Amino acid sequence: MSKTNPGRFFEDYTLGQVIRHAVPRTLSGGERALYTALYPARHALYSSDEFARSVGLAASPLDDLIAFHTVFGKTVPDISLNAVANLGYAQGRWLMPVWPGDTLRAESEVIGLKQNSSGKSGIVWVRTRGLNQHGAVVLDYVRWVMVRKRDPDAPAPETAVPDLAKAVAPGDLVVPGGLDFSRYDFTQAGEPHRMGDYRVGEVIDHVDAVTIEEAEHMLATRLWQNTAKVHFDATNRPDGRRLIYGGHVISLARALSFNGLANAQMIVALNGGSHANPCFAGDTLRAWSEVLDMVETGAPGIGAIRLRLVATKGAAGALRGEDGKYLPEVLLDLDYWALMPV
Amino acid sequence: MSKTNPGRFFEDYTLGQVIRHAVPRTLSGGERALYTALYPARHALYSSDEFARSVGLAASPLDDLIAFHTVFGKTVPDISLNAVANLGYAQGRWLMPVWPGDTLRAESEVIGLKQNSSGKSGIVWVRTRGLNQHGAVVLDYVRWVMVRKRDPDAPAPETAVPDLAKAVAPGDLVVPGGLDFSRYDFTQAGEPHRMGDYRVGEVIDHVDAVTIEEAEHMLATRLWQNTAKVHFDATNRPDGRRLIYGGHVISLARALSFNGLANAQMIVALNGGSHANPCFAGDTLRAWSEVLDMVETGAPGIGAIRLRLVATKGAAGALRGEDGKYLPEVLLDLDYWALMPV
Amino acid sequence: MSKTNPGRFFEDYTLGQVIRHAVPRTLSGGERALYTALYPARHALYSSDEFARSVGLAASPLDDLIAFHTVFGKTVPDISLNAVANLGYAQGRWLMPVWPGDTLRAESEVIGLKQNSSGKSGIVWVRTRGLNQHGAVVLDYVRWVMVRKRDPDAPAPETAVPDLAKAVAPGDLVVPGGLDFSRYDFTQAGEPHRMGDYRVGEVIDHVDAVTIEEAEHMLATRLWQNTAKVHFDATNRPDGRRLIYGGHVISLARALSFNGLANAQMIVALNGGSHANPCFAGDTLRAWSEVLDMVETGAPGIGAIRLRLVATKGAAGALRGEDGKYLPEVLLDLDYWALMPV
Repeated sequence: MSKTNPGRFFEDYTLGQVIRHAVPRTLSGGERALYTALYPARHALYSSDEFARSVGLAASPLDDLIAFHTVFGKTVPDISLNAVANLGYAQGRWLMPVWPGDTLRAESEVIGLKQNSSGKSGIVWVRTRGLNQHGAVVLDYVRWVMVRKRDPDAPAPETAVPDLAKAVAPGDLVVPGGLDFSRYDFTQAGEPHRMGDYRVGEVIDHVDAVTIEEAEHMLATRLWQNTAKVHFDATNRPDGRRLIYGGHVISLARALSFNGLANAQMIVALNGGSHANPCFAGDTLRAWSEVLDMVETGAPGIGAIRLRLVATKGAAGALRGEDGKYLPEVLLDLDYWALMPV
Repeated sequence: MSKTNPGRFFEDYTLGQVIRHAVPRTLSGGERALYTALYPARHALYSSDEFARSVGLAASPLDDLIAFHTVFGKTVPDISLNAVANLGYAQGRWLMPVWPGDTLRAESEVIGLKQNSSGKSGIVWVRTRGLNQHGAVVLDYVRWVMVRKRDPDAPAPETAVPDLAKAVAPGDLVVPGGLDFSRYDFTQAGEPHRMGDYRVGEVIDHVDAVTIEEAEHMLATRLWQNTAKVHFDATNRPDGRRLIYGGHVISLARALSFNGLANAQMIVALNGGSHANPCFAGDTLRAWSEVLDMVETGAPGIGAIRLRLVATKGAAGALRGEDGKYLPEVLLDLDYWALMPV
Repeated sequence: MSKTNPGRFFEDYTLGQVIRHAVPRTLSGGERALYTALYPARHALYSSDEFARSVGLAASPLDDLIAFHTVFGKTVPDISLNAVANLGYAQGRWLMPVWPGDTLRAESEVIGLKQNSSGKSGIVWVRTRGLNQHGAVVLDYVRWVMVRKRDPDAPAPETAVPDLAKAVAPGDLVVPGGLDFSRYDFTQAGEPHRMGDYRVGEVIDHVDAVTIEEAEHMLATRLWQNTAKVHFDATNRPDGRRLIYGGHVISLARALSFNGLANAQMIVALNGGSHANPCFAGDTLRAWSEVLDMVETGAPGIGAIRLRLVATKGAAGALRGEDGKYLPEVLLDLDYWALMPV
């Protein structure tokens, strides 16, 4: 019997199955420091205990994407080891801040299955939950992947495709308890723009660019204990290139978006996301955002802004070609809600 | 209206103006660990809580250059985004140790302005202060940069050039409260040499060398939230090279100087400094020091040694050519005071 | 008088001599986070405070190899600065976990000396101890190196070769106080295999591979304050290559061994080890293990498994050629005891 993990194949998933992912993780100020070293992250709420206290929190939480990557990393050995493609995200919500000292674990429930017409693979939908040491859900999102079958002759499961909303409804957004933007310090935050200064449809070019190195994306990906071979092993692909973890691109783009969206402080929902094209070391990444929607949350001084965040090797604003497909220079198209002073 | 930060141009500065820089930062043991990973730092006072206690401190503070880089990084978006050159430092003092858990913010006062004869740019002098969460100044230094004008036709400001001493006077050096080197453990510190073993004019070749990688200098520069484009974007310069942040060179040289100056424990003043030539990935850095002065501080067993620290790609001792200009292999010429057992 | 450390030469060592190594080090969550970023480390006991508590510890200790590298790094300036070769390890034991906040220092006793027949160098055996801030020994191992003589005419010392066991006896293994694997959570640990599922002679291919970058091995080596020139200075060797610290290979291989040995949680003894061939950036490392022995420890639910861990650029299982020498693709052959649920 082989002792190593072969990963699950399409026929190993059943509807309603709950998978408890391995290797819980305690996070500390070390992960926060590394996040700052890996990404040009400057959102004040995640940089300063003093700023966080001035808006009603006990201290500065860990970046929302630290929580996301940590939870995501745990799911890789069970969900995407034999995945052909990471197809999408939906209905993701951050329900509670994660603090240094917290321990995260993850579990996923299979909520959809559909065999492909080829019979060689299928699509698996899972709802993944990240839980802290108190058993509270801190993060919750749907993800779907295409997974190979071990045995092409294995019978197809009954098709079940979950009904997924295009975006998290404003009423379902969770504002952390105590958060209050009514005495928000725009000078310390880095920009004067409040939600009322933006308009739906506005496109913001984040101007700055970062060229990516192999060592950086591997440090980042390992930091989340995501050990998918394709990110680390230069002998794995015929072209000798290591694929960059899509989450690395998400974090880079989000950090670059500080320049123009410094006050889009907390990510509270992930409406959708596509890793439009693969990213490799040597690529120089830029980012732009489009304002999709804006709502008030009812919490003091706090609005929610819905943003499309695009990482690209090309120009701001360009997304799809005439054929409706993503342009080859586009790497990421992400749709999320963030909290901002109204 | 553009939402991104265009930076200040020469005509945007006025004498006496105080700029509160954005994004306060809480530091932890994570930044300390990263500093050790990025630089061959071995000064015992910054490595060990036990050693720090044996010389009268409550615990090991964060490296003096962590404080410097953190404060410096905050000033970049306001002071040097449109800078053509970083011209110099003067009258820098460390006034108080920075501990894990402290939150630093920064502010700068414009103390000098002088338009260049071309009318296209000018020199701006600022006094920058780093403050902790109690509002105490932990660090204070003068820096001057050449900044482009937005509009060449904008009127020149009245010229005001600050009177800057060549070095911080010994009587102005601040020894941290409680520091006592009278029972200093030279074995644990790594070298037997006390201040009396050095002589003014002595040159110390620090022997070791480090070859710099792109990933390292970018991790370091981001760690201080210094997001100046030229360090990160390989498409920014016509030659496709990323310029290495001058502070990376300072920290590398200072860490290399352990070998020969292991007991020059704390940096207490920055008298001056020039980034003599640009530094790029692939460069192999060496360092040498020259003893410029030595004084007693009045604190128990504690002397102050004034050092010229030179980072170079060449030989120890060589600094300027016959024309008086820095040799092309010289990268840094730094003048500082450090505390050492007498 | 030169102020820099010339290192010790063979004639500087005397039998029974005790060397207190410099620069004590306080470790924190920062070092833990960096360890996870540098290596694909996933053993649950070192990842999660909650998991560690579920097996009777107060919290998650720092990885055993963090303790080893930290102690080893301190010895470099005194033991291996003029070493021609690092010849072996023996009788290493971990005696006590190391926790964030602990301060480690190191000392070595010379326990063997043998001049080579050439008269130009000799072998030095030392027993190195790592101590925490309470003076307790946390780690203890024998290492021997070949060291150059400063003066070939210096008289040879009396030959003294220590008697070293091939392996630490099972009765000498130290199980940390309170450790209890009787309610071990195999799901959270990541694999179902307990000690009874392995057999002596079994070979486990750990499947995954990692391609190494210059920036990574330098960050890692500096993190342990190991400043041996050959790892950092591309101008040091005629071929312009930087040699990778052997400990980097040990940590990479150990982390890769999670896949198949996820429950070999704690390293308690180092029986022996050879750095079979040099490792350079660009190498793609794989790892395999062979089960050498298994014993019960007497502690609740806890067995000890003796493993050969091999890091290689080639295939699993291949170790030596017909000439009895290590194959050129083999980088490391390590023999250790780990604690595992029975």
